[in-house]
Amino acid sequence: MQLELSRVVQCTSRLGVLKGLGRTGQRSLEVPGCLLYTHFGTVPHLTQDTLHTMSNLPSVTQVTLSNIAEHQEVLEEFKDGFRKFAGLHDTVLYCSLHDPAMLCPTGYTTNKTVSVWGSGGRMELTVAKFMALQKSVQPDWYQSMADGETWQNSTSRKRVRKSVDRTLAHLDECLLELDGVEVFGVVEGGDILEERVRSARETAKRPVAGFCLDGLQTGSMDQSLRTQLIAAVNKELPEDKPRLLQGVGRPDEVLACIEAGVDLFESFFPFQVTERGCALCFSFDISPDPERQNGDLNHDDQTQMTSFEINLKDRRYQDDFRPLVEGCGCYCCQNHQRAYLHHLLVTNELLAGVLLMIHNTSHYHGFFAALREALAEDKLDLLKRRVLRDGARQTERKEQDG
Amino acid sequence: MQLELSRVVQCTSRLGVLKGLGRTGQRSLEVPGCLLYTHFGTVPHLTQDTLHTMSNLPSVTQVTLSNIAEHQEVLEEFKDGFRKFAGLHDTVLYCSLHDPAMLCPTGYTTNKTVSVWGSGGRMELTVAKFMALQKSVQPDWYQSMADGETWQNSTSRKRVRKSVDRTLAHLDECLLELDGVEVFGVVEGGDILEERVRSARETAKRPVAGFCLDGLQTGSMDQSLRTQLIAAVNKELPEDKPRLLQGVGRPDEVLACIEAGVDLFESFFPFQVTERGCALCFSFDISPDPERQNGDLNHDDQTQMTSFEINLKDRRYQDDFRPLVEGCGCYCCQNHQRAYLHHLLVTNELLAGVLLMIHNTSHYHGFFAALREALAEDKLDLLKRRVLRDGARQTERKEQDG
Repeated sequence: MQLELSRVVQCTSRLGVLKGLGRTGQRSLEVPGCLLYTHFGTVPHLTQDTLHTMSNLPSVTQVTLSNIAEHQEVLEEFKDGFRKFAGLHDTVLYCSLHDPAMLCPTGYTTNKTVSVWGSGGRMELTVAKFMALQKSVQPDWYQSMADGETWQNSTSRKRVRKSVDRTLAHLDECLLELDGVEVFGVVEGGDILEERVRSARETAKRPVAGFCLDGLQTGSMDQSLRTQLIAAVNKELPEDKPRLLQGVGRPDEVLACIEAGVDLFESFFPFQVTERGCALCFSFDISPDPERQNGDLNHDDQTQMTSFEINLKDRRYQDDFRPLVEGCGCYCCQNHQRAYLHHLLVTNELLAGVLLMIHNTSHYHGFFAALREALAEDKLDLLKRRVLRDGARQTERKEQDG
Repeated sequence: MQLELSRVVQCTSRLGVLKGLGRTGQRSLEVPGCLLYTHFGTVPHLTQDTLHTMSNLPSVTQVTLSNIAEHQEVLEEFKDGFRKFAGLHDTVLYCSLHDPAMLCPTGYTTNKTVSVWGSGGRMELTVAKFMALQKSVQPDWYQSMADGETWQNSTSRKRVRKSVDRTLAHLDECLLELDGVEVFGVVEGGDILEERVRSARETAKRPVAGFCLDGLQTGSMDQSLRTQLIAAVNKELPEDKPRLLQGVGRPDEVLACIEAGVDLFESFFPFQVTERGCALCFSFDISPDPERQNGDLNHDDQTQMTSFEINLKDRRYQDDFRPLVEGCGCYCCQNHQRAYLHHLLVTNELLAGVLLMIHNTSHYHGFFAALREALAEDKLDLLKRRVLRDGARQTERKEQDG
């Protein structure tokens, strides 16, 4: 895996290509970019055929050990790895520890073990068990075992230090068994600057392929502290290795983190939006051609959960015969209207999840494509204003109404 | 709509084509056949694009007034009919009264009204309201309003007679407002032979396009009584009009009813099988080529809900790396194994429903294609033995185990 940067904007925002991915080393991934999120080993609700009708799909799929751990025996018997078990099309497979769309209960970590939570409950992993699992999953690249229980505000300095030490010890054990699969080291350190720097510096000394920035997820801290910590961490990391930020997916946070020098994100956000019956509707079109602008459909709307989405369960959509996003090329917008989605949602028909997942996945990956285009054309500020103005305008109206 | 029979086997089983369907009269449907079932206006869990990758799909889609009635205002505002509202591809639209996959509570019928049950509860329909709904749905063909509350064993002769009278009165009212859309008259009469005959004879006098046989659904009576009633009814019905049997979907019952002269069925059975996490696995292959036989995969299996399916939630499938049905050409069987379906089901991932619905729909419509082929080649007995042997063999083993 090599990161080739084509452009660094304002010393931090990085545009480039991650090359040499997959077993043959022939696959690549553009950065800034995101991995394809899966839940229990599948892009939620979508068959692989439906999925691959979409454009802008990443070449890397993320699966999560917490969803897989309870199938260890079955996978060992199957022998051909999780990619084949789940019938995934040709993709680079990245295996992470926790599912970013689900909160992981804390208080179950020891010096030698971390716990993951599957559908059958908690499973305790030692490094030996963790590595046995990786052998049955057969990913191209995985996240090293880590103690990430430092995202709560109340975490003490002592606990944070312990988390950095344990995570480095786990990494050293994982690296002993490398055999051709790439490993990302995990940078911990909670909200304590010195611990973040120490964790980054120590991890960078190891032969890792890249870095996971853990414990900075949405809800753990505000964006200014997050930006400050990421900037400090990145100073310690080599330029030519990718930095994957875990647990951050909201478009405004993604934009801020790209400006802080993050390369890769997880794409769980469209799934969360789908699960609450919402559709992503924010605009990321900075084209000067007014014909191509997809309108300001969303601006008089108080039905969103974040300012980037609308909630289709709202009665106002029962007779709204427009597509989710005017001009969107996804299957859902090309074939259905908001009123029909509303109808499917209120009647609990599973097709609602299927159609929303198609749109939200397509919209989100389109946003990342627009992001790279904006970086290449030096228009990141314009894109940012476009994305944030939508959000701000709605918040304003909400307050006027409130 | 005209039914052209090409063959009548043993005076009763009818093979033919229902022609002149749809607005342009250019569509047709082979009989014996089934309509494409929808639940809340969509083939459950499947996008139209996924659906249309399947072969053997019927050209007629059934939608149900009970699922639509609460959207009347929205549909009236929409103006373009339910086919367009639900984004259905080009299809002939048939609108029935109740959803065959759901039991309809009894005790809510009056002389002038019937009740349908939507997601928001009960709605009372007069003929005027019923016809207003049909105008907003814009089907090509619909089932006349009917009082079908006679399927319980305890129904008195007086109540059955009342149901026949009311249903004829509703039909006469519906026929007053015909304007180009075809109507199926409904034959009631519970389990009372004379009332069945009276209902059929009186309905046949009216200008209907065909007949719905109501109150004979699975659970209401045993097959020998059902066969006897259908035979008596069919004697009263003209040869050249189709007979649609409501509420019967199990392969053994379908076979028996085709022998009694039924032309059309509703295809809710694959949906019910999907909802309980099962896969249709019965064989309907009567090809003499042993290479083409899809094996007896299912014979040592005690995990089925009916003898035509296997229950994939059973732990025995967690390491079963075979497709649902060896040799099946559906998307699910071509791409996934039983172990993966088991995994999706136990983790409650919606994709399980999507994949099972693909297989079960494909399998069921394949069964109907095989049925027509067997009729054409005079091999219905062979097919029947094949389908029933599978069932019998399993029942036997179950008893041995029990």
